[in-house]
Amino acid sequence: FIRQYHVETRRPGIETRLSAWARDPVLTEEELAYGARVAWRNSTRCIGRLPWAALQVRDRRYVTQPDEIFTELIEHLRMAYAGGKIRPVISVFGPGVRIVNDQLLRYAGYVQADGTVIGDPQNVALTQYLQKLGWAGGKGTSFDLLPVAIQSDTGRTELFTLPQDVTQEVLITHPDCPAIGDLGLRWPALPVISNMTLSVAGQHMTCAPFNGWYLQTEIAARNLADEHRYNMLPAVAQALGLDTSRRRSLWQDRALVELNVAVLHSFDQAGVRISDHHAVTRQFERFAAEEARAGRRVRGRWSWLIPPLSPATTPVWSRQYLDQEITPNFVRQTPAWT
Amino acid sequence: FIRQYHVETRRPGIETRLSAWARDPVLTEEELAYGARVAWRNSTRCIGRLPWAALQVRDRRYVTQPDEIFTELIEHLRMAYAGGKIRPVISVFGPGVRIVNDQLLRYAGYVQADGTVIGDPQNVALTQYLQKLGWAGGKGTSFDLLPVAIQSDTGRTELFTLPQDVTQEVLITHPDCPAIGDLGLRWPALPVISNMTLSVAGQHMTCAPFNGWYLQTEIAARNLADEHRYNMLPAVAQALGLDTSRRRSLWQDRALVELNVAVLHSFDQAGVRISDHHAVTRQFERFAAEEARAGRRVRGRWSWLIPPLSPATTPVWSRQYLDQEITPNFVRQTPAWT
Ligand code: HEM
Ligand code: HEM
Repeated sequence: FIRQYHVETRRPGIETRLSAWARDPVLTEEELAYGARVAWRNSTRCIGRLPWAALQVRDRRYVTQPDEIFTELIEHLRMAYAGGKIRPVISVFGPGVRIVNDQLLRYAGYVQADGTVIGDPQNVALTQYLQKLGWAGGKGTSFDLLPVAIQSDTGRTELFTLPQDVTQEVLITHPDCPAIGDLGLRWPALPVISNMTLSVAGQHMTCAPFNGWYLQTEIAARNLADEHRYNMLPAVAQALGLDTSRRRSLWQDRALVELNVAVLHSFDQAGVRISDHHAVTRQFERFAAEEARAGRRVRGRWSWLIPPLSPATTPVWSRQYLDQEITPNFVRQTPAWT
Repeated sequence: FIRQYHVETRRPGIETRLSAWARDPVLTEEELAYGARVAWRNSTRCIGRLPWAALQVRDRRYVTQPDEIFTELIEHLRMAYAGGKIRPVISVFGPGVRIVNDQLLRYAGYVQADGTVIGDPQNVALTQYLQKLGWAGGKGTSFDLLPVAIQSDTGRTELFTLPQDVTQEVLITHPDCPAIGDLGLRWPALPVISNMTLSVAGQHMTCAPFNGWYLQTEIAARNLADEHRYNMLPAVAQALGLDTSRRRSLWQDRALVELNVAVLHSFDQAGVRISDHHAVTRQFERFAAEEARAGRRVRGRWSWLIPPLSPATTPVWSRQYLDQEITPNFVRQTPAWT
């Protein structure tokens, strides 16, 4: 990577730097920043890579204490939210620590006696793990934000509750159908992935939370729609007055589109940045063209890049990408509870 | 394959048959029928494989003359259409012949002086090839059915026009929006793929047209919708009175759903069998379960199996399949004009 950094940025002094690296393999702040940006550029499953070079990198490798990390996370959230004009940011913390939560802003999933789940079924295991660590549980609504669990290099895990002024959420309403607003749906403004390892030049940074802004399909075509998530399509269809007796009437497809309209409308009204699948796939075309111009193969996993709504209307549908990982990159961690 | 046939159908006499085959490798009628069914079962890109064992196989290997083939094609279309209760049928013709058309029922694509296309842009090359062979062209509408070109073992190609009583088409109307009906859209009732080679036991049958029934997404989410096909989403959106000035209003997504509703409605009204993507993907789950029960790996190409409309609402979205071809199978031919 050190070599790549010098070549791509046309920085001189490559040989001197390489021999220094051989003695003391510590990334400079600039190298780390470039490494994080290239890690994003190399993320095969990410459709939002066009602005990879604009990623803001907070070098906090000297921070290793859970409480200090937590203070820095609050600062990260403030800087990233930026009053709704969301900026892509990554904070890189010291070695040996990790965040248990897969994202900083996640809703609890409470299993009921009858086996059903209140909240987000995807977060049931995380919720139970946090409860074992001492979390008393939230109010019991469908949208209780979970505390953040930070594991220090001693193996001890501490829980922290984010202050309300950095956990902005958007209430979901529909421009023409008030009954959809009455469902009381909401979603966090910021997607902050907090459980992936940033891997640069053989260094593995296990605590390096990063955020972009949402693509509406993530919220409206998966998180709120999937049967094994919030499963809201039947309720949305009812709000729209659709006949849900036969799948062949395409009530699911109609409800899905209107839920996507609602999420885009709500974020726009709230002044919170969000992409739509038509725009982001066209931006990805530009990214692919720029990569080709730079002489690099465009890596991508087609099955993750196509949107789950009307995919064949987007330019990504008819493309092929090289599905191959290279470093720098972001690598998944095994959950703390397994 | 001969061995597989005996094992799967529990037919005795396998050793006798194998030594006979070594001397004279000609498939019996039963072997051919089973081979064609297994070729369907092995079609990784086909979501409609559940009824593979019910494929009706017409053994016409003794037919090799274009005019006789044409007569048999008419018979095939009649038997397959069955008054709307479409049945999956394959006709297997003699060696050395092929059909130039990729499907028996295709619309012409006429290139205009300004470069635009009247009809189906996908069939421009086929249309020009047929014109070179002597076709005078049709009326010049967007939906002129093309003649069928059959190439004999001498290399000569003859043109034939199918009689109207075997080229059923369905006029597309919408249950609630008459303006969509006013667009004058239509589509053939039957998908008859006519340019794939049936490969069984090392035998390559180049003329073996087969049909199933349509899945509505093929017509409504691709053929009529794609920008490089009939590109009807803007017109459908206008018929629906949608604001098409910003993609972010999701007018394409809304028009797409309503076009799918219209196609299902129209086929249902006309009494012509058609699948919807919710039902066919659930049938495919049953197919996969049956295959697993029979001890066979489920082969599939995920990118072809997911529907282009609301794919994440179907069970196929979260599955993985072995993307690997085995014989018996259907293999693509290079077009006659290349
Ligand atoms: C700027 C706006 C961004 C948008 C619109 C965007 C969009 C997306 C989407 C839609 C996914 C698929 C998520 C899923 O289906 O679960 C994704 C995945 C991913 N993105 Fe981005 N992204 C953005 C920024 C970023 C940034 C800043 C980074 C890192 C610096 C990043 C790295 C990744 C990675 C590593 C994945 C794969 C996650 C996984 O495996 O679960 N993205 N992105
Ligand atoms: C019975 C109803 C059937 C349905 C609903 C169905 C559905 C489909 C669909 C949706 C596709 C993808 C088409 C595309 O995107 O271009 C497909 C492909 C395919 N199907 Fe089926 N199918 C049916 C019957 C059959 C039969 C009877 C056969 C053969 C005996 C067959 C063999 C194939 C093959 C070989 C492909 C790949 C075609 C290619 O590569 O272009 N299908 N099917």
